[in-house]
Amino acid sequence: MTHRIEHDLLGDRSIPDAAYYGVHTLRAIENFPITGTAISIYPNLVNALASVKEAAALTNRELGLLDQVRTDAIVRACNRIREGVAHEHFVVDVIQGGAGTSTNMNANEVIANLALEHLGHKRGAYHELHPNEHVNLGQSTNDVYPTALKVATHMGVLQLVEAMGILRSSFEAKAEEFKGILKMGRTQLQDAVPMTLGQEFSTYAVMLGEDQDRLREAALLICEINLGATAIGTGINTHPRYAEFACQHLARITGLPLSTSHNLVEATQDVGSFVQLSGVLKRTAIKLSKTCNDLRLLSSGPRAGLGEINLPPMQAGSSIMPGKVNPVIPEVVNQIAFEVIGNDVTISFAAEAGQLQLNAFEPIIAHSLFKSVGHLRNGCLTLADKCVNGITANEQHLRSIVENSIGIVTALNPYIGYTNATAVAQEALLTGRSVYQLVLDKGLLSQAKLDEVLQPEKLTQPRA
Amino acid sequence: MTHRIEHDLLGDRSIPDAAYYGVHTLRAIENFPITGTAISIYPNLVNALASVKEAAALTNRELGLLDQVRTDAIVRACNRIREGVAHEHFVVDVIQGGAGTSTNMNANEVIANLALEHLGHKRGAYHELHPNEHVNLGQSTNDVYPTALKVATHMGVLQLVEAMGILRSSFEAKAEEFKGILKMGRTQLQDAVPMTLGQEFSTYAVMLGEDQDRLREAALLICEINLGATAIGTGINTHPRYAEFACQHLARITGLPLSTSHNLVEATQDVGSFVQLSGVLKRTAIKLSKTCNDLRLLSSGPRAGLGEINLPPMQAGSSIMPGKVNPVIPEVVNQIAFEVIGNDVTISFAAEAGQLQLNAFEPIIAHSLFKSVGHLRNGCLTLADKCVNGITANEQHLRSIVENSIGIVTALNPYIGYTNATAVAQEALLTGRSVYQLVLDKGLLSQAKLDEVLQPEKLTQPRA
Amino acid sequence: MTHRIEHDLLGDRSIPDAAYYGVHTLRAIENFPITGTAISIYPNLVNALASVKEAAALTNRELGLLDQVRTDAIVRACNRIREGVAHEHFVVDVIQGGAGTSTNMNANEVIANLALEHLGHKRGAYHELHPNEHVNLGQSTNDVYPTALKVATHMGVLQLVEAMGILRSSFEAKAEEFKGILKMGRTQLQDAVPMTLGQEFSTYAVMLGEDQDRLREAALLICEINLGATAIGTGINTHPRYAEFACQHLARITGLPLSTSHNLVEATQDVGSFVQLSGVLKRTAIKLSKTCNDLRLLSSGPRAGLGEINLPPMQAGSSIMPGKVNPVIPEVVNQIAFEVIGNDVTISFAAEAGQLQLNAFEPIIAHSLFKSVGHLRNGCLTLADKCVNGITANEQHLRSIVENSIGIVTALNPYIGYTNATAVAQEALLTGRSVYQLVLDKGLLSQAKLDEVLQPEKLTQPRA
Amino acid sequence: MTHRIEHDLLGDRSIPDAAYYGVHTLRAIENFPITGTAISIYPNLVNALASVKEAAALTNRELGLLDQVRTDAIVRACNRIREGVAHEHFVVDVIQGGAGTSTNMNANEVIANLALEHLGHKRGAYHELHPNEHVNLGQSTNDVYPTALKVATHMGVLQLVEAMGILRSSFEAKAEEFKGILKMGRTQLQDAVPMTLGQEFSTYAVMLGEDQDRLREAALLICEINLGATAIGTGINTHPRYAEFACQHLARITGLPLSTSHNLVEATQDVGSFVQLSGVLKRTAIKLSKTCNDLRLLSSGPRAGLGEINLPPMQAGSSIMPGKVNPVIPEVVNQIAFEVIGNDVTISFAAEAGQLQLNAFEPIIAHSLFKSVGHLRNGCLTLADKCVNGITANEQHLRSIVENSIGIVTALNPYIGYTNATAVAQEALLTGRSVYQLVLDKGLLSQAKLDEVLQPEKLTQPRA
Repeated sequence: MTHRIEHDLLGDRSIPDAAYYGVHTLRAIENFPITGTAISIYPNLVNALASVKEAAALTNRELGLLDQVRTDAIVRACNRIREGVAHEHFVVDVIQGGAGTSTNMNANEVIANLALEHLGHKRGAYHELHPNEHVNLGQSTNDVYPTALKVATHMGVLQLVEAMGILRSSFEAKAEEFKGILKMGRTQLQDAVPMTLGQEFSTYAVMLGEDQDRLREAALLICEINLGATAIGTGINTHPRYAEFACQHLARITGLPLSTSHNLVEATQDVGSFVQLSGVLKRTAIKLSKTCNDLRLLSSGPRAGLGEINLPPMQAGSSIMPGKVNPVIPEVVNQIAFEVIGNDVTISFAAEAGQLQLNAFEPIIAHSLFKSVGHLRNGCLTLADKCVNGITANEQHLRSIVENSIGIVTALNPYIGYTNATAVAQEALLTGRSVYQLVLDKGLLSQAKLDEVLQPEKLTQPRA
Repeated sequence: MTHRIEHDLLGDRSIPDAAYYGVHTLRAIENFPITGTAISIYPNLVNALASVKEAAALTNRELGLLDQVRTDAIVRACNRIREGVAHEHFVVDVIQGGAGTSTNMNANEVIANLALEHLGHKRGAYHELHPNEHVNLGQSTNDVYPTALKVATHMGVLQLVEAMGILRSSFEAKAEEFKGILKMGRTQLQDAVPMTLGQEFSTYAVMLGEDQDRLREAALLICEINLGATAIGTGINTHPRYAEFACQHLARITGLPLSTSHNLVEATQDVGSFVQLSGVLKRTAIKLSKTCNDLRLLSSGPRAGLGEINLPPMQAGSSIMPGKVNPVIPEVVNQIAFEVIGNDVTISFAAEAGQLQLNAFEPIIAHSLFKSVGHLRNGCLTLADKCVNGITANEQHLRSIVENSIGIVTALNPYIGYTNATAVAQEALLTGRSVYQLVLDKGLLSQAKLDEVLQPEKLTQPRA
Repeated sequence: MTHRIEHDLLGDRSIPDAAYYGVHTLRAIENFPITGTAISIYPNLVNALASVKEAAALTNRELGLLDQVRTDAIVRACNRIREGVAHEHFVVDVIQGGAGTSTNMNANEVIANLALEHLGHKRGAYHELHPNEHVNLGQSTNDVYPTALKVATHMGVLQLVEAMGILRSSFEAKAEEFKGILKMGRTQLQDAVPMTLGQEFSTYAVMLGEDQDRLREAALLICEINLGATAIGTGINTHPRYAEFACQHLARITGLPLSTSHNLVEATQDVGSFVQLSGVLKRTAIKLSKTCNDLRLLSSGPRAGLGEINLPPMQAGSSIMPGKVNPVIPEVVNQIAFEVIGNDVTISFAAEAGQLQLNAFEPIIAHSLFKSVGHLRNGCLTLADKCVNGITANEQHLRSIVENSIGIVTALNPYIGYTNATAVAQEALLTGRSVYQLVLDKGLLSQAKLDEVLQPEKLTQPRA
Repeated sequence: MTHRIEHDLLGDRSIPDAAYYGVHTLRAIENFPITGTAISIYPNLVNALASVKEAAALTNRELGLLDQVRTDAIVRACNRIREGVAHEHFVVDVIQGGAGTSTNMNANEVIANLALEHLGHKRGAYHELHPNEHVNLGQSTNDVYPTALKVATHMGVLQLVEAMGILRSSFEAKAEEFKGILKMGRTQLQDAVPMTLGQEFSTYAVMLGEDQDRLREAALLICEINLGATAIGTGINTHPRYAEFACQHLARITGLPLSTSHNLVEATQDVGSFVQLSGVLKRTAIKLSKTCNDLRLLSSGPRAGLGEINLPPMQAGSSIMPGKVNPVIPEVVNQIAFEVIGNDVTISFAAEAGQLQLNAFEPIIAHSLFKSVGHLRNGCLTLADKCVNGITANEQHLRSIVENSIGIVTALNPYIGYTNATAVAQEALLTGRSVYQLVLDKGLLSQAKLDEVLQPEKLTQPRA
């Protein structure tokens, strides 16, 4: 393997010629041997970096700070990255010190070498086109990195929202399918009053819909960027119109409604919009986990559980118990949710630890957010495809429980009074007899009236 | 002390005659001896319960379900509670089982007895006006309690947002006062480039402003209520127009833009808007904590620290070290923030634990939210009044550090090039000499040009 | 109300003559209007402060630094506090800035004035006996406060461990009572293989026993104190034998196996033992919550749930549903657990925020720990007394489920093979028929052999 | 690519012939497309599974349940895995549903096919040696998986403790190197009293030593295993001596002091020891983070910070600021700590979610623990090697701050009294003059006495 020599302020280093990255990336590889996972696992991030660098190059061209040839080469390099080229050269560890500098440097170096290649130069011929002087021109990690995170996270959230829509449709279809199936509702795990299984499943769809709205709102908050802030937000060494032009280019390239923060000093140190987004992701996770808890509970059995619904079997559930099938898909979504909630605490810590003009801990914020967004997305798709779509209901069982329930006595309150109703309920519990029979036996209502009052469709909605 | 006898499904119990509460409250007192703190410490909650009960009574009157005399008595009782009467009779523990039933029962009983008093009856004369049959008519804990929580939390958030406004004004005033004071900005605690102390303080104001906006948005989300849902959201035993009328009355009474959820089954089991609000409170806490960290860091000293600003001394700092004064006000705000972040985890757990048609754990959600909202409010007011308003700056010290800094070399990049600038920086670090002198000595720039480039007002903003 | 004038480095202040506290406490009251809750709600803390001050006075006497008269007066004051006197004068807010200085000052002042009273002097006559010069002699908040926290927490943990023992006995009694009741075990909420209800309840007892052991170990770790460290652990202004003598006195007074840390600089800044204790409290909380989840699940019903056990009814469960009874006691314990888990995050934040030679955030650590310890204790006592002791089992129902289960097929594996067993299980699930009948019909085993294999006592343990 | 056909209860599937895994693993791959990361990234886990399977095979041989030929083949397969063979065939996602069943099945299948290969059979020839009937004989996922997790975690913790020892030695070496360097200690970021830099660095070593002890204790708690419990702890279908023999074999194979739980039903559902371990890992993370915060603070500068120590430069710190070097190594350790603290919350959620006889969420507990243990280990090694070992001190600067400090006035308390000392301190602060000169000028002490009192070695320890 042939090598080239590159130089930084610590001295000379040998770089494999095949590498698009350079000496700064090499230092980072050596400095952060933490997880063994490279930032290339987050294609949204790599693409976002390329978008930011392209926007910066075009702005520099517009301001007369970069010549056309180099601009074209950089733009082409960025385009190729977004087409999927050279992602494997984004090799810095997902957990890294330095506020993202190593990620930014990795991007500068890969783009420079791709651009050099395009211009017919050898990799490392930085006197022709320099990672720092040209690719990073007018930029600082402190504006490039958070801007790229925002673009990448936004992309990820849109993908998540789409997956949630698919899951929501699955629940809506089931709500429609189950709308005529009567069952007992429960509060505090105790029998309450009747409802339809369709009503129950509709709640899961509605929750997802609300969370989609909240995620879209949170995603909008991360459209405010600080590109042009440079080191600390004062915009030192930038042209007065740099921020404006760069934002316009980036908005066009990404298709996102980006805007520049009014106070760039604040925007450079603040990670509030990431904290907010993580909070909303946590909300989504909590709801999904609650939904999966319900699915596991309602499908408990087959003989000793609630046995209300059946989840499609996806794999043998036990190596020792023949025929056992477990709710593995809801279980994996529960676990994703637990991870997302933990990630939120990690993000809280990292956010609180920001000091003065910068938050040095954005890499772990990014890593945590990307995991939360990506795993939730995969969880939603899996839950829809491998579980919800195949759910069936045990309709007869559900109806017989309602008919045998004590809870229907609540519906008789307006006709026999709370005191009589309580007496009937207590006697039913004690004797095991049915409310229906007891009311008849006591002559509290005629059978005709009782049948009318206890009509399923009347039990599950208000009535005059 | 004389007593009266009250009855519930478990039997008879003796109640002190002086008590406005009744047997259900007594059971709750006995069942939940957990914290020793009663729900009366949250006046917003007590008032919100009174508002909900008043709205329900007026709705029942409107629907012809409650007579005018009892309606008037209940309304008057609710008004008196909002005037501050009988709060000390809301005695249930802030941590309680039962999904808020005990809190609802406590309210029903206190209101019934206040109403009975108004009607000239003795306490406990429930055949005249019954806590359950009349005060709670058409309601369930499962719609009353979350609705009251939302009203109460909304009130609390508005008070918090107001307090944040006061703190924000304090920071804005300081930003204005300090706008001409030049200092070194820092990233990753290392000297970066110059800025003004005014810019630094403006960020704290801007952060608060953003958080105010986010809190107002989150507060709007808790304006969607489920009153009329009764037990599980099917509205069993309510009139079809009950929910609509009750919401209108409650909106009028509270002055809040309330609306009824479209899917009451979902709304009855979902606590997502509380989770979201807690997430935003956490965001606010994180920012406040970061701000206080900065204030403590910038005021470190007096001789061995950064010594950039002075916090007003509030108390002797040490029993052993003469003259020591500590940043006690920022420290207490840090601790409030840590509590709020912990509360958010508590709320996450409670929210995730909801099952099927109800979340039984709303009491701990409420307790946690009320603490977060109230303590943050007190923290903001204290920080403004006892700290920020009295901050002074050590202007000469700050300026001399800038002049002596290596970081100003960044501003020379466009004139002497990155390579020369790096060499100057490294020599300055090694020799302890000033960048200014080194640039002159090396003949890199004329003194006139150097003075022009390093003009303070040019260092802290973009330039063409 | 008459007043006296006291003085601190900020000037003169008027103090109500009735107050045992003085000017430093007054400043703290004004500086920290956060929760409205005073440290007097933690009697263990107040008593521990008195113990530390007594130990310090006796040590100072021993070293010849404090005269006998003042020593006796201070010792008597500390004894009276431990008898319950003057606790209401410990008025500083539970959330306070200043690393506990205000709590220490509050103790110094109350003890000084109690001692002055004993000596026949007026409150505030500090020239006779000074809060700082005599009560605090040789001490610093930075050694007194953490030492008092450790003593107080240790006391609290012992009380918690005792309460856990009571709950554990309740579970053990039920395990014994239920040892002959056969039921289906479940994994992943799906029917697994048979067990006894006694085995199930024994696990709750065993978990508590393990947690008692872990808490005792964690409590031992907080027996290592830093008294004698003074300001930062260098022991400045203390006699070389002060730490040793003070520890001996305090160990004797408290009856705890205290020892002095080997490295007092480390011990003064480190809060690791609190973090560890909180982690173990969290573990206990998680187990208790899991146990309560099980109790709520097993008692779900009465008609539409698992209906395996019955919890004693403690209060009416619903204002709208006649006869409904809810598992309110397990629910309140769940909520305590959620609070404890949140407190652990608060403590993590506070611990991580310590800087250099001190952790300024010990007050919120203390507040969080005291809440966790105290609420868990109350939860255990309540759960034992108001729930577990009254649990009954639905034995016939449980047995019939086992007999009707598919899960017993597992026990036939060694006799009919996994393949046959799987076929039987699948047919049973499809047809609703019993495993017993299917095995007979297929001639896989004789009825005698089948009866032998399926004997209850053979199903719930290994066999040769 | 050729394929073979395998069968499970859902039907036939085609498996690539090159795969050692089989149909159950294939189902799991399809069911859990969550993170894209396979369990093979945790070699300790793969090796632990092999150890458990070997112990089970040897036990089955001993009990006469497995013939010698198959036993030998299984044992050899397990040995090869521990030598590193076939790890890439452990392909199940690290986040998976099913309580670890898929991981166990993956192990059974790989071991079976390795054993078949050894016996000269083709992969998939399960009639010769079956993943389930032979490799998994007498086992259940519910005892195999947690046992393997414990073995793997124990191995990981030992590696972590060793890395902590290396870091501790680094700090100890620096403590020794810096023992003569006087500096100001700080409390609450305010100047306190003098200490040596050696004392300061010794605390970091002592903290690590304590955490090593705590981790070793926590690791011992996970030596209690439930092998032999099978499905729910009743040991159904195992020989009465199976558990005992299997534990002995596993202890021998792993070299760990393993023991069998006394109550296997409890042990099978309980994850308390993982929660405890995670709590201790969190403690370690908090301390490391605090240490890194200190290092970053003490090395702040070069001109505008504390500038007490210098961290070795590891990479260029900025693309825009020439010569800037940042504390990237402490920063990456901070971020690892934040991740570990978040993992602890994830584990808390997963642990609390266990239901009845099993915790279905052990896979996310395992994943979180493995990350925490592994990343902390890498962080310690990196911190020692790339940061602590290269730290240098700015001795003259530190000493001059002490000499110029107000804090040394504390040492004069015993000689000039607290009142005089306070007056000197206040005047020093106001005028900027030195304490030394003020004391002389006021004639409070002779120069000789003053010089004696302020001798460095006397300031940093107790004195008579």
